[in-house]
Parts: sequence; structure tokens; C-alpha cells
Amino acid sequence: MERVPILKIGDILLVSIQVDMSDQTAVQLQEDLAERIVATGCHGVIIDITALDIVDSFVGRMLSTIASISKVLDAETVVVGMRPAVAITLVELGLSLNGIRTALNVERGMELIAASRADEWDEADVDEDAETTATP
Amino acid sequence: MERVPILKIGDILLVSIQVDMSDQTAVQLQEDLAERIVATGCHGVIIDITALDIVDSFVGRMLSTIASISKVLDAETVVVGMRPAVAITLVELGLSLNGIRTALNVERGMELIAASRADEWDEADVDEDAETTATP
Repeated sequence: MERVPILKIGDILLVSIQVDMSDQTAVQLQEDLAERIVATGCHGVIIDITALDIVDSFVGRMLSTIASISKVLDAETVVVGMRPAVAITLVELGLSLNGIRTALNVERGMELIAASRADEWDEADVDEDAETTATP
Repeated sequence: MERVPILKIGDILLVSIQVDMSDQTAVQLQEDLAERIVATGCHGVIIDITALDIVDSFVGRMLSTIASISKVLDAETVVVGMRPAVAITLVELGLSLNGIRTALNVERGMELIAASRADEWDEADVDEDAETTATP
């Protein structure tokens, strides 16, 4: 059985999908990814699908599942490298990638994750400030 | 024909090899990589072989060729993610990966490239300093 490698780059886990995903490979990837998120404490998952010519409902569902699992483990998922033809097919098939954020390439995906983490921190700061000023 | 995707992360191009390399795929990857190095001006190439169970003489030669091409284009190549079994087989087969630097994982590979670039800059600085002090 083929296993999709997961690469750690800073605070982000990078998965580049290049092989045809079977049921087993998909489940294995989900398990591996969940384990790596917990083991590394990473807050972002980037899934590169540059190599995919087709994203059917199976792959779409797999991406959604990965995004949901990551979210529960406090990590954000961004899908990058979607080909124009894939995007067109997705829309034609009526498949919406629920709960999945997309970016043009890995770098933009990293920026997206960094920005959304920064936002969360800002909000936490604001909450704290409000509390401090409310009890002078 | 399958095409191995090349991901740009900062100053580095990342290639994760997951499919069995045919002659054609290997040549295509070399061409793509050379083009991307020139187009992006990147100074580092990281090749991840986590997914490879076997590195035979064909793959070994491909890695050496990529390293040589990159070097001519002023980019350094680091091979990362080699499995222990692969390393053992390489030695047993008497294959030495000529001109190829290796690192344990992508992060270490990035550090290696950053460090060797820094060294080059330092040397350039020293040369400049020496010149300045020689002509007061």
C-alpha cells in the first residue's frame, strides 16, 4: 500500500498528493495526519493537489474529512495548487469543497495560515484588553 | 505521463518524489526543475524521498544529475527523508550519491541550504573587507 508522505515545515504540515487515492490510502493519510498534528502541535495543514488531473467526489470528501479532523485538532487546512480545469470540473459537478480554504500555491497557503493565526491572537489580545479596562 | 510537482517555498524549490520514476518522468523532472530554478532565481532544491522504498542506480543517477544541473544554475541540492533501509541498500550496492548532500528532514535541509548560503556571503564580505583595508 502506498503511503503519502507528510512533510513538516516550521509550524505547518505539507502533504503533496500525487498518487491515485484508494480507500485505504485515504484512510491511512487521515490517520497519519491526525497523529502528526498531535505529535508536532502544528497549527496548519497544506494539501498540494498540483499533480491531480481530476478531483472527484471521493477526493473532495477526503479533503473535507481531513479539514474537519484538523479543525478538531486546532489546525487549519488549506488546499493549494488546484488546476484551472479541476476548478471548472468541480463547479460543473456541483461539488463544493465544504469547510476547505484554498490558495494559489504553497507560499500563499502559508501566508493564509499565518494570517488567520495572527487574527486569532489579536482577538485574544482584544478580549484581554477589554477585561483589563473593565476592571480598573 | 506523470509529472512530479515542484513547490516553491521562499528561496527553495521542494520536490517530493512519490511515483516510480520512468526515464521520461526523470527527464521531464530535470527539465522542469532547471526551468523553475531559472524562472524563480531560487538558490536551493530539496528532494524528498520519504516515499521511496528503493533507490536503485537509476534513481541515484537521476539525483546526481539534478544536483549537477542545479549547481550550474547556482542552486544547492539536498536530498532529505531517506529511509534507514534505503541507506543500507545504497551502501550494500556500492552506490555513492556523488555531489549530493543529504539531511534528515525538510527543515534540516532548509537549514543546511541557508547555512551554506550564509557562508558564501560571509566569504564575499571577508574578501571585500580585505580589499578595503588593503587600499586605505
